[in-house]
Amino acid sequence: MTELEKQMRRLGDNALKASRRLIGFSAKKKNRILMAMAEELEMRRDIIQSANKLDLQAAAENGLTEALTDRLTLTDARLDAMIQGVRDVAALSDPVGRRIWKRTRPNGLIIEKRRVPLGVVCIVFESRPNVTADAAVLCFKTSNAVILRGGKEALHSNSAIAEALQTGGTKAGMPAGAIQLVGTTDRDAVHILARMDDRIDVIIPRGGESLIKAVVSSATVPVLKHYKGVCNLYIDRSADLQQALAITENAKCQRPGVCNAIENLLIHSDIAADFLPLLKQMAEQRCVQLRGCGKTCAVIEGCQPATEADWSEEYLNLTLAVRVVSGLKAAIEHINIYGSHHSDAIVTDDKRNANKFLKEVDSSSVYVNASTRFTDGAMFGMGAEMGISTDKLHARGPMGLEELTTYKYVITGTGQIR
Amino acid sequence: MTELEKQMRRLGDNALKASRRLIGFSAKKKNRILMAMAEELEMRRDIIQSANKLDLQAAAENGLTEALTDRLTLTDARLDAMIQGVRDVAALSDPVGRRIWKRTRPNGLIIEKRRVPLGVVCIVFESRPNVTADAAVLCFKTSNAVILRGGKEALHSNSAIAEALQTGGTKAGMPAGAIQLVGTTDRDAVHILARMDDRIDVIIPRGGESLIKAVVSSATVPVLKHYKGVCNLYIDRSADLQQALAITENAKCQRPGVCNAIENLLIHSDIAADFLPLLKQMAEQRCVQLRGCGKTCAVIEGCQPATEADWSEEYLNLTLAVRVVSGLKAAIEHINIYGSHHSDAIVTDDKRNANKFLKEVDSSSVYVNASTRFTDGAMFGMGAEMGISTDKLHARGPMGLEELTTYKYVITGTGQIR
Repeated sequence: MTELEKQMRRLGDNALKASRRLIGFSAKKKNRILMAMAEELEMRRDIIQSANKLDLQAAAENGLTEALTDRLTLTDARLDAMIQGVRDVAALSDPVGRRIWKRTRPNGLIIEKRRVPLGVVCIVFESRPNVTADAAVLCFKTSNAVILRGGKEALHSNSAIAEALQTGGTKAGMPAGAIQLVGTTDRDAVHILARMDDRIDVIIPRGGESLIKAVVSSATVPVLKHYKGVCNLYIDRSADLQQALAITENAKCQRPGVCNAIENLLIHSDIAADFLPLLKQMAEQRCVQLRGCGKTCAVIEGCQPATEADWSEEYLNLTLAVRVVSGLKAAIEHINIYGSHHSDAIVTDDKRNANKFLKEVDSSSVYVNASTRFTDGAMFGMGAEMGISTDKLHARGPMGLEELTTYKYVITGTGQIR
Repeated sequence: MTELEKQMRRLGDNALKASRRLIGFSAKKKNRILMAMAEELEMRRDIIQSANKLDLQAAAENGLTEALTDRLTLTDARLDAMIQGVRDVAALSDPVGRRIWKRTRPNGLIIEKRRVPLGVVCIVFESRPNVTADAAVLCFKTSNAVILRGGKEALHSNSAIAEALQTGGTKAGMPAGAIQLVGTTDRDAVHILARMDDRIDVIIPRGGESLIKAVVSSATVPVLKHYKGVCNLYIDRSADLQQALAITENAKCQRPGVCNAIENLLIHSDIAADFLPLLKQMAEQRCVQLRGCGKTCAVIEGCQPATEADWSEEYLNLTLAVRVVSGLKAAIEHINIYGSHHSDAIVTDDKRNANKFLKEVDSSSVYVNASTRFTDGAMFGMGAEMGISTDKLHARGPMGLEELTTYKYVITGTGQIR
């Protein structure tokens, strides 16, 4: 066993031990600990921001992109939001122990299906240091032990935040090992963790596609993938064009760097001649770069032609690929082939078309006449979220507290035998 | 691409195509197709049993064990049960389309969480040919396309059954590709399928531990493991000893070859001197071979000593490992370490101990004062089952129709933007 393997195994052992203790914790006790974490974060604002400055210095020296540097930066407002987030999670109701159903069988056996923690959760994420707090408290609230692995560019910030959570939590009775940060930036650490199926119950990789693919390929631990969002908006023949334009603008421009922003716009050929000029105007006003199919380029002069690769690209910026399609069927096919099964919308006044779209588009969130930007735990009324799963098993779409639990069957008898 | 890879990819393409069509099928249409399958099986009884004879001949020539030969044999009664099973699944209610919840958000968005099919399911199983029909109809009922990979010793039987399902189904409007059997016995086929994550949504390996481990290790498709059942029964200090004995006998002897039979018996040290003689007598009457810890062997003369390996062994026969433990805490620890998180029971009259056991034993099904033999879809009132998952994610314990679905969020708006 290498030194790194030993290190990771120790993390796993500590987490497993902590998770066994967390099973017995009441919601009240967990909330008290969460409030102590928030308080400790508050007290350590300066320490955390100094640590963040170290990361930002290194980022400048290493020429990190502006977008990544922005994600890395812990402004006062972001720190406030992070601390408030911890308090908000304390206020959410605890799914652990909740009864899903209860039945009495003809032989008198009482069978209950009850929510229980997953056990040990490992999260792999990128540059945003506030994820350290968000993920840790959601796992703790659901009585899971968590192993956090953040991006190397945020190591100082993440360490300072994790230390605050650990210190605050420990003061209020949190077991050691409940929240642990992987201290090394060695990439192999992730692959070792992903094969520790005797210690870790699930690994949740968020971020770059290549990282996620690498984890999936080597993992024996079940993986909940948070892949990219290649979201699509389809404007049907019967759409209200002004509504369609407003939704297009919102879904593309309101926050282009997030996974529920759209990358592709599909337009029914019958209305393309009417809608494309409106789109062109909006694009010019909002500095949106269009990449069009042949028919789009024929209407919008000077539009850059889209290539096959454009249909499955997650731009994360103000680029929009535009394709004129022959109708609903072609739109659904396009979305199921090129999309990432995240969030897709139709604008239509035709109820039958809406229903066909909702049924046949194979994505976690399907919309009629609304912006895809609403795919988010808070917007769905689920409370805080760990991220948005692009998987179909266990958790699909926003992953909230409930998705951090599993269930067990509890059977009470009076001596029944078979 | 090898010829085998091309073959598997064709199966995947066909399945994906079929699954897209199945999404639009009503429960009524699916049930009509299921009844047609049952009828075709009925008409082909002779063909199926002739095929089964070929497998049995080969089994005799290859010296297959008696237990495996028994599993392979399609008696009249088993064929009846298989055909009735298809009709029973037609009679079950269809979870697809069922609403999990519906909310109207403050901005007027209507958000529904609805059950939808998983898509393409791949099942890998061993010698029992009736699994071909059971698994195929459960998947079909939930609008999933299925790829079946049975044991090579049952290939003739499985082919005859699959052909009957396909022919009967097709007559009633089932799309080609909805039910497919892997025609080759090449072991590599499973590993190719397990990496086809662009076509297959889940792979469910049932059977031998080494097969399952190999699938998990190479898979990029999510795996739902159906590992072994190392089930435990703990007799607490306050147990009614006659009830404890009856449950021990039932859980071990009623059908020792199944996964929910017990392999380990744990006894509180305070009652060991009273209980072990009763156990000895029962074991002699029922031909149960005991393997005991030191304390057990000190009371039961001539008892074979248990080794460390015995505590995690799935005997699947009339062997029972017996350990005297210092109390509840030690029993829970033993079960969480050596058990397979399948089904575990406590016999006790102490409510607090019962609750501690139910909470802290980390298994899919935890029992108080009843036999572990009840872990089964039908016994839990869930209807037919695909098997019993030892995983924590997505499906835990008996996997019925609902566990063969996932969900999507359906959002209906009137132009909402963010």
